[in-house]
Amino acid sequence: MNSNLTPAGQTFDAIGFDGDDTLWHNESLFSMTQDRFRALLAHAADPTDLDRRLLEAERANLRVYGYGIKGFVLSMIETAIAVTDGHVPARDLQSLIDFGKAMLEHPVELLPGVAEVVEMLAGRHRLVLITKGDLFDQESKIARSGLSELFHAVEIVSEKDPATYRRLYADFTRDHDLWNAVPAPEGQIYDWPPSTYIARPPFFDGFTVEPPPLA
Amino acid sequence: MNSNLTPAGQTFDAIGFDGDDTLWHNESLFSMTQDRFRALLAHAADPTDLDRRLLEAERANLRVYGYGIKGFVLSMIETAIAVTDGHVPARDLQSLIDFGKAMLEHPVELLPGVAEVVEMLAGRHRLVLITKGDLFDQESKIARSGLSELFHAVEIVSEKDPATYRRLYADFTRDHDLWNAVPAPEGQIYDWPPSTYIARPPFFDGFTVEPPPLA
Repeated sequence: MNSNLTPAGQTFDAIGFDGDDTLWHNESLFSMTQDRFRALLAHAADPTDLDRRLLEAERANLRVYGYGIKGFVLSMIETAIAVTDGHVPARDLQSLIDFGKAMLEHPVELLPGVAEVVEMLAGRHRLVLITKGDLFDQESKIARSGLSELFHAVEIVSEKDPATYRRLYADFTRDHDLWNAVPAPEGQIYDWPPSTYIARPPFFDGFTVEPPPLA
Repeated sequence: MNSNLTPAGQTFDAIGFDGDDTLWHNESLFSMTQDRFRALLAHAADPTDLDRRLLEAERANLRVYGYGIKGFVLSMIETAIAVTDGHVPARDLQSLIDFGKAMLEHPVELLPGVAEVVEMLAGRHRLVLITKGDLFDQESKIARSGLSELFHAVEIVSEKDPATYRRLYADFTRDHDLWNAVPAPEGQIYDWPPSTYIARPPFFDGFTVEPPPLA
């Protein structure tokens, strides 16, 4: 264990965790469902071709659906209709809806060691869960994970990009006593306090705008 | 205009707004789509019966899908399959998917007067937008509404219930200078400051635990 994580050497006070595939299994649910999707349409499409068509549909739909299982199901339905030229039986499409519901209701399975590590860290640090995707599904998973009481804050975001993290950090730093207690220099010119970390470079001492005459 | 809203008589500093059907039209998109759904299935189901079946599906699915357009589309597809006993052509189900995309991409139409009122209030109060539903769709609508810069905070929640509002108020009061500046009595016993609002009742003066002897 890194000594940064011990109370004695504490150098930060918040730890941000991702949810899907960090705290609990997620991708495995998607690949399990995609296997079932391939089997359902084996009569109409080659698996590699089907995967490619599904990925194309998901990419095209991301702009309207965002991330999450409901959008994934709608993309599977659309792909099934397209690859069968509209001949897929409606009952097979009902199966895709049922696959989606099974995903949404699937028990949340923590990754090995997560329960122990999160519980230990929660006693030492402010823990923040930052997870991307569908609000309703993510809230449900957090509740079912049994971990929600250990987190100081939970942020469910639609995209993990610089703008999102900037917004989140703006909120977090407001609350962070340790961060806010760090004395920071003011003014427009750095006053070079004694430091071995950012040391004052000596080669500008006596610097003038006009070069001195050559001796 | 109520004088509570003028700067002179300001008695609160935050105003919370709902989004759907408060700032912009929303329900009209759902009823327009439901009309198209009835027309598509007119050959198979009586409109009243179809509405009832769709509502039942939506209610049953709320627990897995939450609120929002994607769940609505999945419920329409399921209802179409059920009322046709699995005989609905896949192309009609693609139409339902297309109806949903049209809803998600529909321009955000503000209700009359909203732009003017929100702009005026934003100069006087801290405005908060509290809206329920699908994270991705709501963020997209807020961005397209042209109003997002006028709100101090935007909260997209999966349910509007007492627990949600308690959590939101806990956050808001932390930031509210006016609320936090109100002096509050401390200790376990109220010290009856002079007030005409909560006046000290006189009938406990000289109260003793043992009743005095009858004169």
